[in-house]
Amino acid sequence: MSARALAAPDPSVGPTSDDLARWATADRSVRPARLARLRERMAAEGVNGYFAARRENIRYLTGFALGDGEEQVAGHSGQSLISADEVVVLADSRYTIQAFEQAPEARVEACGYDLPDRWAALLASLQPLGDRAAVSRVAVEAAVVPHALWLALEQAAPGVGLVAAEGWVEEARQVKEPAEIDRVAAACRLGDAALEALLPRIAPGVTERELAWELEAWLRTHGAEALAFDVAVLGGERAALPHGSPGDRPVRAGEVLLFDFGAQVAGYRSDMTRTLFVGEPSSRNLALYELVLRAQAAALERLKGAVEGGESVTGREVDRAAREVIEDAGHGGHFGHNTGHGIGLATHELPGLRRTGPETPLPSPTVFSVEPGIYLEGETGIRIEDLVHYDPEAGLLERLTRFPREVTVVGT
Amino acid sequence: MSARALAAPDPSVGPTSDDLARWATADRSVRPARLARLRERMAAEGVNGYFAARRENIRYLTGFALGDGEEQVAGHSGQSLISADEVVVLADSRYTIQAFEQAPEARVEACGYDLPDRWAALLASLQPLGDRAAVSRVAVEAAVVPHALWLALEQAAPGVGLVAAEGWVEEARQVKEPAEIDRVAAACRLGDAALEALLPRIAPGVTERELAWELEAWLRTHGAEALAFDVAVLGGERAALPHGSPGDRPVRAGEVLLFDFGAQVAGYRSDMTRTLFVGEPSSRNLALYELVLRAQAAALERLKGAVEGGESVTGREVDRAAREVIEDAGHGGHFGHNTGHGIGLATHELPGLRRTGPETPLPSPTVFSVEPGIYLEGETGIRIEDLVHYDPEAGLLERLTRFPREVTVVGT
Repeated sequence: MSARALAAPDPSVGPTSDDLARWATADRSVRPARLARLRERMAAEGVNGYFAARRENIRYLTGFALGDGEEQVAGHSGQSLISADEVVVLADSRYTIQAFEQAPEARVEACGYDLPDRWAALLASLQPLGDRAAVSRVAVEAAVVPHALWLALEQAAPGVGLVAAEGWVEEARQVKEPAEIDRVAAACRLGDAALEALLPRIAPGVTERELAWELEAWLRTHGAEALAFDVAVLGGERAALPHGSPGDRPVRAGEVLLFDFGAQVAGYRSDMTRTLFVGEPSSRNLALYELVLRAQAAALERLKGAVEGGESVTGREVDRAAREVIEDAGHGGHFGHNTGHGIGLATHELPGLRRTGPETPLPSPTVFSVEPGIYLEGETGIRIEDLVHYDPEAGLLERLTRFPREVTVVGT
Repeated sequence: MSARALAAPDPSVGPTSDDLARWATADRSVRPARLARLRERMAAEGVNGYFAARRENIRYLTGFALGDGEEQVAGHSGQSLISADEVVVLADSRYTIQAFEQAPEARVEACGYDLPDRWAALLASLQPLGDRAAVSRVAVEAAVVPHALWLALEQAAPGVGLVAAEGWVEEARQVKEPAEIDRVAAACRLGDAALEALLPRIAPGVTERELAWELEAWLRTHGAEALAFDVAVLGGERAALPHGSPGDRPVRAGEVLLFDFGAQVAGYRSDMTRTLFVGEPSSRNLALYELVLRAQAAALERLKGAVEGGESVTGREVDRAAREVIEDAGHGGHFGHNTGHGIGLATHELPGLRRTGPETPLPSPTVFSVEPGIYLEGETGIRIEDLVHYDPEAGLLERLTRFPREVTVVGT
């Protein structure tokens, strides 16, 4: 748990420098295909420019990697402008050196709050020599770009049409390349090992906050470059909060203790939930746990059927499979969220395994969570969450989270 | 450095539970005045609704406190809708319990991605009984609200005009109440103590990343609820990067080592920079250090003159005072950023001490940084940053950062 561990992380758990180099090479080799897919979409939608503002999309398309926290200090940090034959990374002056290193195929321009002033010239610079078709219609990631910036860009080049684009890159990102799945798997291994290492520390009296800190410290000193999100540790009736922050509440014998956390490895994330039992489990909690486990098994069974039968399945069908088990036991009203979500550069991304999801087959290969839960307000909560790698064409359904799902009793 | 320290933080450094209770009480007592100021502005601008989306503004006006990281998992988390006589907190279902606790004066509505569907009904619910003037014009924080959401709200209630509001709450937030300044000061004390505690650990061979982690771990186990931003530790020529992430580069004797970091205490932040010398300083680095120190002193002198003379000063004049010293020494081209920024609920906020800032007097009482620097690319970098509390009406100019500014040699 000491900071020294940073210097010599356990090579059997965290990524090695060889891993990191291999992934960087893989990213470089796939970027042309990613850009080609986007440009096909651009042509089909009748635009000749694309303005990317979502952190994950910029990294996916160009390699320029801003952290989650970058925006919090100075607002603007980076965007990207893509035409039929060029990629420009617009990086705040604080990030231009980083952008040059991470996005070697792109043209890097130092650009921040002055973006509207430079917009017209930037668009003009994208016009290929000898080509009379200037960039005249630009798709903009409108779910991310603030309205004030949209207005400023509109005014800065009144002749250029802006088109609100939603999901063009996000839909492509849900299909994962091998080096992407490798990294999610590596992040899962770190999560598994972190919780395993924490088990001896869990005992009545220790607080949620202390355990959350120890878990974070372990992850960040064993190869996680960041957390996927703030660690949740919730005991007893607090486990019924669908979201909750660890507090100063001490762990008590006879209660459940829910951990929901994830690591980030070379940009890619994991997400896992385990509900442990502190001391002798109550029969009520045990019965609920077995029910949630059966619900998760039903969802996985549905996926396995699709993989083995060679037929597609929708996220809504997988949600239904898990939900039916819980509804049949009379707890339908206590499972308020969806069954799963895609994960990769973002913690929550497409595809969704949702009650009201689209009736389209799950993409593949892809990675998503399967995480049914039951929450009895003021009493207790149980959730079990694993990430799975789904690839029916390869006949593959692989659980990336390996921590046991069996009833785990701690603190005795 | 152990996680155990969380259970018993050093009471002489971190905030006590009494402090936290006192600040919460102070916040509750000032919220009516904050809302009254906003409503005056609303009336003056001809709107009868205000839609707040910036995390800091929501906390300032309602008490509902979302963390920096909340958005990263699921997008929408919380907003607030304010009319002439009501405050509604719109919280994602994951956050409604928290919102009830933190915003007791507000009406809390569980609301997330369904906001556009509910927009018209929410606006109608703000119409006071018996009052015929429905909410008809709503100011929207357009620098934060995504364009796609703006469009969806426009379509959801075509009869209600949306007005892009910029700075209405941000301008109010720059004038700090005593309990706000207390918290920035408490965060500064944590920063001072953390760097002091780290000094014995700095020696040739230790890496930037190891030192950054130790500093973070110390802060988070001694009362900081979060970092103000990711810790920067940059050695030698890397200190010339105006922004940079700590790397695996080991600290070397004869070089500078720049620390830029801050803590968060009960929502409020600190931000400090110190440039230390590892082993015997070179005469070149020493001369640059003395120059930056003189530039900072000149800025502080300008502020002191204003406080003692009872006259106002602009941020631009303070920037000028520091910049002239550096320009006169021939390094004007090596000081590429502004001299300072306000700080509070956000790390960077108004007022700015900028080269091109407005010619309006600094607000008061307020808190901001004074942080001149000199950066020689590929060679070395020096920055010294302190936070000051500026209150000319009280005849007060107080340095909140107390770590010594004198040449500090470490690792010998």
